[in-house]
Amino acid sequence: MSADDTPHSTAQAPTSANAMWGGRFASGPDAIMQAINASIGFDQRLYAQDIAGSRAHAAMLAAQGILSSSDAEAIREGLLTVLSEIETGAFEFRVDQEDIHMAVESRLTQIIGEAGKRLHTGRSRNDQVAVDFRLWVRDQCDAAIAGLTALMRAFVVQAEAGADWIMPGFTHLQTAQPVTWGHHMMAYVEMLARDRSRFEDARRRMNECPLGAAALAGTGFPIDRHMTAAELGFDRPTANSLDSVSDRDFALEFLSAASICAMHLSRFAEELVIWSSAQFRFVRLSDKWTTGSSIMPQKKNPDAAELLRAKIGRILGAQVALLTVMKGLPLTYSKDMQEDKEQVFDAADTLMLGLAAMTGMVSDMQAQVDTLRAAATSGFSTATDLADWLVRELGLPFREAHHVTGTLVAMAERKGCDLPELTMGEMHSVHPGINQSVYSVLGVENSVNSRQSYGGTSPVQVKAQISRWKALLG
Amino acid sequence: MSADDTPHSTAQAPTSANAMWGGRFASGPDAIMQAINASIGFDQRLYAQDIAGSRAHAAMLAAQGILSSSDAEAIREGLLTVLSEIETGAFEFRVDQEDIHMAVESRLTQIIGEAGKRLHTGRSRNDQVAVDFRLWVRDQCDAAIAGLTALMRAFVVQAEAGADWIMPGFTHLQTAQPVTWGHHMMAYVEMLARDRSRFEDARRRMNECPLGAAALAGTGFPIDRHMTAAELGFDRPTANSLDSVSDRDFALEFLSAASICAMHLSRFAEELVIWSSAQFRFVRLSDKWTTGSSIMPQKKNPDAAELLRAKIGRILGAQVALLTVMKGLPLTYSKDMQEDKEQVFDAADTLMLGLAAMTGMVSDMQAQVDTLRAAATSGFSTATDLADWLVRELGLPFREAHHVTGTLVAMAERKGCDLPELTMGEMHSVHPGINQSVYSVLGVENSVNSRQSYGGTSPVQVKAQISRWKALLG
Amino acid sequence: MSADDTPHSTAQAPTSANAMWGGRFASGPDAIMQAINASIGFDQRLYAQDIAGSRAHAAMLAAQGILSSSDAEAIREGLLTVLSEIETGAFEFRVDQEDIHMAVESRLTQIIGEAGKRLHTGRSRNDQVAVDFRLWVRDQCDAAIAGLTALMRAFVVQAEAGADWIMPGFTHLQTAQPVTWGHHMMAYVEMLARDRSRFEDARRRMNECPLGAAALAGTGFPIDRHMTAAELGFDRPTANSLDSVSDRDFALEFLSAASICAMHLSRFAEELVIWSSAQFRFVRLSDKWTTGSSIMPQKKNPDAAELLRAKIGRILGAQVALLTVMKGLPLTYSKDMQEDKEQVFDAADTLMLGLAAMTGMVSDMQAQVDTLRAAATSGFSTATDLADWLVRELGLPFREAHHVTGTLVAMAERKGCDLPELTMGEMHSVHPGINQSVYSVLGVENSVNSRQSYGGTSPVQVKAQISRWKALLG
Amino acid sequence: MSADDTPHSTAQAPTSANAMWGGRFASGPDAIMQAINASIGFDQRLYAQDIAGSRAHAAMLAAQGILSSSDAEAIREGLLTVLSEIETGAFEFRVDQEDIHMAVESRLTQIIGEAGKRLHTGRSRNDQVAVDFRLWVRDQCDAAIAGLTALMRAFVVQAEAGADWIMPGFTHLQTAQPVTWGHHMMAYVEMLARDRSRFEDARRRMNECPLGAAALAGTGFPIDRHMTAAELGFDRPTANSLDSVSDRDFALEFLSAASICAMHLSRFAEELVIWSSAQFRFVRLSDKWTTGSSIMPQKKNPDAAELLRAKIGRILGAQVALLTVMKGLPLTYSKDMQEDKEQVFDAADTLMLGLAAMTGMVSDMQAQVDTLRAAATSGFSTATDLADWLVRELGLPFREAHHVTGTLVAMAERKGCDLPELTMGEMHSVHPGINQSVYSVLGVENSVNSRQSYGGTSPVQVKAQISRWKALLG
Repeated sequence: MSADDTPHSTAQAPTSANAMWGGRFASGPDAIMQAINASIGFDQRLYAQDIAGSRAHAAMLAAQGILSSSDAEAIREGLLTVLSEIETGAFEFRVDQEDIHMAVESRLTQIIGEAGKRLHTGRSRNDQVAVDFRLWVRDQCDAAIAGLTALMRAFVVQAEAGADWIMPGFTHLQTAQPVTWGHHMMAYVEMLARDRSRFEDARRRMNECPLGAAALAGTGFPIDRHMTAAELGFDRPTANSLDSVSDRDFALEFLSAASICAMHLSRFAEELVIWSSAQFRFVRLSDKWTTGSSIMPQKKNPDAAELLRAKIGRILGAQVALLTVMKGLPLTYSKDMQEDKEQVFDAADTLMLGLAAMTGMVSDMQAQVDTLRAAATSGFSTATDLADWLVRELGLPFREAHHVTGTLVAMAERKGCDLPELTMGEMHSVHPGINQSVYSVLGVENSVNSRQSYGGTSPVQVKAQISRWKALLG
Repeated sequence: MSADDTPHSTAQAPTSANAMWGGRFASGPDAIMQAINASIGFDQRLYAQDIAGSRAHAAMLAAQGILSSSDAEAIREGLLTVLSEIETGAFEFRVDQEDIHMAVESRLTQIIGEAGKRLHTGRSRNDQVAVDFRLWVRDQCDAAIAGLTALMRAFVVQAEAGADWIMPGFTHLQTAQPVTWGHHMMAYVEMLARDRSRFEDARRRMNECPLGAAALAGTGFPIDRHMTAAELGFDRPTANSLDSVSDRDFALEFLSAASICAMHLSRFAEELVIWSSAQFRFVRLSDKWTTGSSIMPQKKNPDAAELLRAKIGRILGAQVALLTVMKGLPLTYSKDMQEDKEQVFDAADTLMLGLAAMTGMVSDMQAQVDTLRAAATSGFSTATDLADWLVRELGLPFREAHHVTGTLVAMAERKGCDLPELTMGEMHSVHPGINQSVYSVLGVENSVNSRQSYGGTSPVQVKAQISRWKALLG
Repeated sequence: MSADDTPHSTAQAPTSANAMWGGRFASGPDAIMQAINASIGFDQRLYAQDIAGSRAHAAMLAAQGILSSSDAEAIREGLLTVLSEIETGAFEFRVDQEDIHMAVESRLTQIIGEAGKRLHTGRSRNDQVAVDFRLWVRDQCDAAIAGLTALMRAFVVQAEAGADWIMPGFTHLQTAQPVTWGHHMMAYVEMLARDRSRFEDARRRMNECPLGAAALAGTGFPIDRHMTAAELGFDRPTANSLDSVSDRDFALEFLSAASICAMHLSRFAEELVIWSSAQFRFVRLSDKWTTGSSIMPQKKNPDAAELLRAKIGRILGAQVALLTVMKGLPLTYSKDMQEDKEQVFDAADTLMLGLAAMTGMVSDMQAQVDTLRAAATSGFSTATDLADWLVRELGLPFREAHHVTGTLVAMAERKGCDLPELTMGEMHSVHPGINQSVYSVLGVENSVNSRQSYGGTSPVQVKAQISRWKALLG
Repeated sequence: MSADDTPHSTAQAPTSANAMWGGRFASGPDAIMQAINASIGFDQRLYAQDIAGSRAHAAMLAAQGILSSSDAEAIREGLLTVLSEIETGAFEFRVDQEDIHMAVESRLTQIIGEAGKRLHTGRSRNDQVAVDFRLWVRDQCDAAIAGLTALMRAFVVQAEAGADWIMPGFTHLQTAQPVTWGHHMMAYVEMLARDRSRFEDARRRMNECPLGAAALAGTGFPIDRHMTAAELGFDRPTANSLDSVSDRDFALEFLSAASICAMHLSRFAEELVIWSSAQFRFVRLSDKWTTGSSIMPQKKNPDAAELLRAKIGRILGAQVALLTVMKGLPLTYSKDMQEDKEQVFDAADTLMLGLAAMTGMVSDMQAQVDTLRAAATSGFSTATDLADWLVRELGLPFREAHHVTGTLVAMAERKGCDLPELTMGEMHSVHPGINQSVYSVLGVENSVNSRQSYGGTSPVQVKAQISRWKALLG
């Protein structure tokens, strides 16, 4: 995109579309300038949005009497022809057209003649690119919401299958307490739900139409900005024309939400990498998402998981890039802002691919139920339950209960057994009040079932959350 | 904060509060470990939140019959004593207490005895720090919203004073079209309104209470998480205990919103630095926000503006830091997450100070009305208006109108005058259809007044936006 | 790149090159996995490095008797054929080949038959990609050094032309003291010289050959790593095979140096944007590096400068991306590391284009000598010289001299004149010791000429630095 | 730091040190401005450097006859008194002193009277802060080099102890081939050696003295910059005064090197976290670097390792912060640059603490030799050795050898044994050329011992590297 207060066509004989502004340059832009300046190489991706914006603009110009109905009709039809040419590959993009706006308008004028030159009335490339890019990012919000929903469903399916499968709950990657597979899966549903909610908020906030801000000051033509806003699905027009052409918050907010989401993906990816190691074997990944080896057949490299762990890098990088670009820019449009698109394109592609890949992996992965259970039962994982029992049943202050528990665990460790194998006598030697009912809290099932606090790991609680989410996810 | 599935007091003889877990270490943590591990140096800042959380927890434990009413009352009163000691400076923080939770509980137990040891029933340091920090960040959202509102008001005051002062509208830091001072001021109101809206969304999303998630799995005690949530002003309890102790989205979303907001501040700061240069002189900053020199009295270094231009650096840095920390962490709590607080503390302090300083600068700055107007009238700034007139009055296609305008401007440039000084004869030589009424669009007032499109720069439009915002801002 | 301890060809019937490892997958990688996993779309850019590495490897295998001379010769010739096919566009890259290594080897085997299958002896894709990428980054260091040298020369040419042109020296964008154009230009030569020195250090540090590390552990074949290192222009082989395949420091160090360099470019770009504003007019940019407008002919948008100001964003973004990717990766190769190339490719392209564009802009720009001088003479810019005179000639303590100067400047300001217009009587009223010789320090030429300290702004000092650099730059 | 072309003392009655410039402000800086503007809160950390710089400056002024010997002596002695006051805690820092330079000079003048006012002759706060901060960062380079050397030694000690302990070599966290513990340890020595080399280069590059650049243009006093440079241990004075006061490359390069180093620490930290999980048990961390639990005695949370994994966040964040600050700053000094110090202080402290903690952890950790060996022997980890044997002994092309190996592994997998348990008959059924000598390559010791390529994992190679490094590390 080039600033657009100013481009002009030398009406006589523009040999190429964007020699348009070239007339006043003695030397003409050379190859380096073209390479650094032209955006057509990447902003062609906005062709559908550009054409939609122009069609809405033409219809409005006609409705307001600024353009004749026949001109507007010719423009709207001609733009559909251009759209079709692009989508069938018949359209040739040329770097001397500089940007998608010039490329489309130039081709339109070739097709329909004079009327094409009337399209740019009452607008500018500055508001044109603002509306094109906003429409594109809005679509990406929708895509992210859809992708997140699919991934949430995949986690819910896993959760439902294993609502009561027991696995170790970790802190510091050390076994802390037994939890359920379903509970662990549903933790990601909560994270992803926040991500989805962030994209929804961002979409709502960006859903104002900058078209009609013109170069920067608005226009003297009696345009109807509410009409174009409505036609393009916006809630309303933007309220300040200077802000409209210098605002890239919508792109930044998309990147912010994407970064946090990518961080969530990186966390489950890390778990998959660790869980599929020979030492853990908590999960078996599908061949679809791994690469293998003919000579070490046990080896299934979790490539997709590793890549998803990494992808936060490029999304965060994009966010840093665009914020750094925007830092300290005076109003209104500066060419610096042309750096916005490639970063968002790449981040959005990365996110959508990542969500799809993760959905596939989650759907296909197979929990190794026995291994999980075995890991959960080792390591005195129910020691906390014992301490809680001492508080609840014997009325010990919590800090004292912890001490008694510690002594019992140390005893079991010396004896080489787990807590349930301690005899009542041994227990009495530590605290005389302990009675037979203590054994009921020392198994992992008992432990898990007891955690009935709202949002806790007991299958009853987990199933309640699954039901809630199944209703919400449709 | 240290993970808290596990700390225990050796009931016999804890010489210091957090030799609590120290008993099993032959050697004890040495100075390096203490330096890297202890968080008391910074998390003491959460004291009020920690005490509020504990008081709510104690009340709930009593209501549920888990704690006696007298114990709960002793705890709640004792905590107020601790609060008072901290606020009066009587409390001594010691690095061997490790974190604010231990420091408060340890002092509580000194004051009220045995009952203090019962407070930690049914919770853990993992959910305790989660609720403390969330309360703190929630307060910062409120502070940001208040700070933004004050700054928006300051911009509105400036806008109202100069709703029709004419200044150059820039693209590429080149004069493009005349705009109004009020319009420029109101552009920032729009930006800041989006910032405010982001903090509101973030606050709403984070307003769920993690207390009761315990170490990670929930608890077997019959706690009432809805009660503590309500007492602490949360909308509801969080729905998954694993997520509750491993989630730092609220901090990240705060940092995201703060980064974009700081970018906005950097943009106006850059404008202030440029505008207060000897070459621009668009604005005069108050002595309050500049530093001067006795020997170059014309020199007023815009220090505050420069610092505000820079502050995005440390806020973006904080965001990068925390996202990098969270990348690839398996569930649930890992000690890595202790890195969250200092980043958010510093970013929040920076943002609040920045908003206050910017509010002061905006309130005190004096637009140099004559200089602004003079700058707006030079450089054929109404050439676009002429082109638009040719389209509107003579029906020329836009691209042709631009060409005619270009020829007229070139003529004026050769003649050494501005557009209004061209004679009708000279105009006719370029296009015979031009008539006397063209002169009505060539002055900057006319230009500005004509831009009546919604959100445009005409004083009528600007005043409408000012009215809208005055109503909204109260 | 895919991990390479393991890929195998099912010798019977590999229908496509990288169904190689596909045999053991029931379902086969589907489109999503291919999209996220394949690197051929970007790593094809390493073709020349891959072929050079393979040719060196084959020669070494023959020299060590691991491969027959005839096989080695066939391989080396066949690789040249593949190279030629790629360079002429005859080579077809297919996404099912997965990466450049497989694409080249697969084509080689098509051309020369069985011998092609012997090439991969004693190496792995892990060390192959490590050497390919290192060779590529090494080339970019050379390109950066060359680009920086050209840009330094352009600044020296500007400096020489204007070694004694006077301009304002700014702090805080406020005029501080007069300096010379040549001095300002040479400041950038110093910055760029540090950049160049950083790329030289990085190149030297990365110049060790990882080939022969094999998958991760080295190999049992009697390879000669010193021979391949020498053939590929490395100083020596790397010393630890695990590190060799998991190290991406060379890429990170390149990005670090590039980020700092891009920051330097952004600073001069900002100066160009400000200097070419209507308010400053310190410099006139060539049409080659600006875009214009037919209707506002005075307007020359400094597009290239704005883009160069922005480019630090994407380079810093790339650095953040790759550091985030590498954070917390256990040894040795993880698929995450495949994210390295696109970031470095883009950053290197951006840097080289930026250096070229800046060289063009600097070469073409025209200092507006009169405007610069006029700006330097306003604003009591020699007040410091007066203060220094008071110290030097009258022996006043510096802090008192400053006070006297301040009083004199205030007097001149009230009188509406500059310092040289104060009479001796007026001066005596402030300090009786002042004498006629004070006037010799109050002009900008005198000020500039007096700053003879090493590295100071006096033309004598500036010319000495120009001479030094002309000798160094050849 | 405040810009220093200009501060002045109102000689009559400066009530406070830095009401110095306050005289011309009607209102005076209020609390907000003081909070955002004053640097004394953090730059007091530069006191020793500031005093050293001032002492060198005074000595030079005397040597050049600019100051009397007695004044210079008084200043140099007085500064030692100030130094002593600061180091003993007798010095009171006050925020109205604004920065460390003013604080020291103000106190100096209190102590020695008039002579103190002569110290600031021929210099400025701009070059003063530049030299102070550069001296500080230079010290940090030395500290990093020392810290890295200690850590390298710790890894070498571990390597020497276990030069032939066998462990699994991982790619993708999947067992790939057996390697040695010593080899793995030495991989980190290589990484850290590159880090050390980067700090050495940075130190060398920054070792030029900016003192004498004065405010920005140099000075008219006949100062000897080579003398002050030499006295402060610099290699030479900087060559351009404008660059000298606007350059922060030395800080950025320090941060770049620190970020890469922190990334290396994060990698080993991640390995420690994984290795100390119940599933891996590859290593036993010392109690000194972990926190424990009285009730789950097997649990040792690897807190220090987790924190070291996280610390890259804040160091990378600091780098992003400072690069963002410096982006687009016009020459020379802008107040934005005051943001440099806190970032570097925090990053340097974090790095030094991290190096110390890692050195402690590495020194104390105990490899679980049996567990490591057992893990290495599972999973057909010597399949590559078999393939290599087929190439070497039977002359099979590598790709065919891989296929044969794959078939044999599949056979063993079906049979439920490892490769050495296959009979010769079974082997012959896959390839008739296999003979008895194949068994010699199928054990992990044989595998490891065979990898004799330079830098390979065989104990012979590893010991050679250990010897080389012991000699280098002294």
